[in-house]
Amino acid sequence: MYLNEIVCESCGFLCGPDNPVTSCPDCGSPLKLQYDFARMNQEASRNELSGCGVKRYRELLPLDDSPVSLGEGDTPVVRSSSLGSDIPGELYFKLEFVNPTGSFKDRGTVVTVSKACEWGMNAVVDDSSGNAGASLAAYSAKADLDCTIYVPARASGEKIVQIKSYGAELEEVPGPRERATEKLKENTSGADTYYASHNLSPYFPEGMKTVAYEIGEEFGWSPPNHLVVPVGGGALLIGLYRGFKELARLGWINRAPKLHGIQTKSCNPVVTAFENSWDQTRPTETRPTIAEGAHISNPERGEEILEGIRNTGGQALEVTESEVKRSLRELAQKEGLFVEPTSAVPLAGLKRLNDSGAFEPGERVLVPITGSGLKDAETWRAS
Amino acid sequence: MYLNEIVCESCGFLCGPDNPVTSCPDCGSPLKLQYDFARMNQEASRNELSGCGVKRYRELLPLDDSPVSLGEGDTPVVRSSSLGSDIPGELYFKLEFVNPTGSFKDRGTVVTVSKACEWGMNAVVDDSSGNAGASLAAYSAKADLDCTIYVPARASGEKIVQIKSYGAELEEVPGPRERATEKLKENTSGADTYYASHNLSPYFPEGMKTVAYEIGEEFGWSPPNHLVVPVGGGALLIGLYRGFKELARLGWINRAPKLHGIQTKSCNPVVTAFENSWDQTRPTETRPTIAEGAHISNPERGEEILEGIRNTGGQALEVTESEVKRSLRELAQKEGLFVEPTSAVPLAGLKRLNDSGAFEPGERVLVPITGSGLKDAETWRAS
Repeated sequence: MYLNEIVCESCGFLCGPDNPVTSCPDCGSPLKLQYDFARMNQEASRNELSGCGVKRYRELLPLDDSPVSLGEGDTPVVRSSSLGSDIPGELYFKLEFVNPTGSFKDRGTVVTVSKACEWGMNAVVDDSSGNAGASLAAYSAKADLDCTIYVPARASGEKIVQIKSYGAELEEVPGPRERATEKLKENTSGADTYYASHNLSPYFPEGMKTVAYEIGEEFGWSPPNHLVVPVGGGALLIGLYRGFKELARLGWINRAPKLHGIQTKSCNPVVTAFENSWDQTRPTETRPTIAEGAHISNPERGEEILEGIRNTGGQALEVTESEVKRSLRELAQKEGLFVEPTSAVPLAGLKRLNDSGAFEPGERVLVPITGSGLKDAETWRAS
Repeated sequence: MYLNEIVCESCGFLCGPDNPVTSCPDCGSPLKLQYDFARMNQEASRNELSGCGVKRYRELLPLDDSPVSLGEGDTPVVRSSSLGSDIPGELYFKLEFVNPTGSFKDRGTVVTVSKACEWGMNAVVDDSSGNAGASLAAYSAKADLDCTIYVPARASGEKIVQIKSYGAELEEVPGPRERATEKLKENTSGADTYYASHNLSPYFPEGMKTVAYEIGEEFGWSPPNHLVVPVGGGALLIGLYRGFKELARLGWINRAPKLHGIQTKSCNPVVTAFENSWDQTRPTETRPTIAEGAHISNPERGEEILEGIRNTGGQALEVTESEVKRSLRELAQKEGLFVEPTSAVPLAGLKRLNDSGAFEPGERVLVPITGSGLKDAETWRAS
């Protein structure tokens, strides 16, 4: 393991790698992991990778022990059948919903839960009525950790059924979404419980870097020119940004893809900040959206999301609810991909990017497909 | 491709490999594919496999062209955490629900739909309210084939939502399950429509052989000693039987695992035939069962299912509804595997096998987990 220390870029807080921190204990900001890059660069080799899925990249991850695994990663890349015919290059989908709990979140969870086990924790908690909650509940069951998930009262649907199935405690909190987070913080104490927040823990986005590693390797270390990604909390975009940056620094790839971040007009803090050339996102008024997974009014890591888009030459774009619905149907009916609404957001964005001439002939464009349609059969039933 | 001809073992019917047959046109029995094994044995090498998933074994499959793929196969194998502690050896799960449509059926469908495309078909039909229907609808969408699925009227649940999402036509047929099959046959004609029956088409079980190939390779060509499998129509058990038999004949493995077939007491034609030493299954009285995918009163390929169990030294066992429910909860809460009830049938059977001393110290036991719990959230919600 090359993990050196944990730092807060806001206030300068710094601690060693064995501290079970979630956010900065001094100022509450998100933390970042720092690696001994010189040693990593000397020792790690892309020709010596072995094993399957996320475990294949274990050496680059902040893990001491073999991770608590449900076989996550190794997700398929498929070439588009008909939806790509409008763009000048080639369109690919990476099926991140083909993961053990049905979403891309398993990559972040495997690292977070494995750390909780390394630290000897007995319990984990998170606030999520969605894919992150289901994923944490599953890996906790596998690791024999107690798990409590705080959700807004009256949350329903397949994801709640899934969370309960794993034996996790479900704490239903009346009031707006933020109340669930507050209640979690009020109720959680004790050195044996880790707040395994998918939005805050510095370990979660580290696991997400494995999407970039896999894409690199699957494309023969010559990754696609463009990645088009839905943005809510930003774990996927940040994971891709950090992962490709690391691969480039290691010399395993020559250039990182352009990362385009797509949101809906109903909830667009990143797009607003991007268009206004702000360095940081600001709290945004939101409306209800079919793309629940991208409904975050001010992401914790807004600054890094914006950095990832700008530094790679990507764009931040917003799309309408009806564009998302159309893309959702098209993915199922033309590509055989039954996905949840949030997963259709980037395809809607891709069309706008294409209309604006973002893609050159011969370029390769990849869209990660984040969550299974089975996660939100209710929305499909109603549509 | 090594496919030579298509034969009916019941009446001796024989035709060439380019005929889009489903069952025997003379007697209605299931058909079998015959390969040029001598040439396969000479040319195919386990050291020259390349590519991912089902496509990795393309050379052994009856395909002329590159298959219509959604990235199926390459499913994870995970070692049991706590459920295996009772058995003298090691327990593994192969997560077949980590496939593009959420079930093992994708392996059979990829071959069936690819053949329909090779033959220049415009449409496919099947009778299934379950995983096979959802899988066929998905691959048809990818391949731009029209797809019609016949289901009993009032069929509901996530699988129906999924089938419709892909744009397939859903024909709801009042009356018992068999009426859907009859209605399909009444309505289906024309040389451009293939009856892509997952129970009858000779191509479907050929795709299922890839589970055996993958298990062989994942275990370093020394497969586990026991496989414990749920049995409904038998596609999985037959695919495993044929696949391991072929690997042994090719000299890629030294011995095939014992195949144990598990059913519920509510629907047990294979167990009844096994216990009575019959060569063929007979129609059985059934009761409703939580394990819908194993609710087939007389499987089309009953004879081969029995042959597969007996020739490998396996057993056929029945389990109770409450044993299935307990195993369902245990898979989720102890192993982090949220699965549909049919997928919990083999774990219940494994306990009975273990109680009867079927496993020796040091032996490895593998249970394929066939379908996602998200496919049947309604049952979970009710339980």
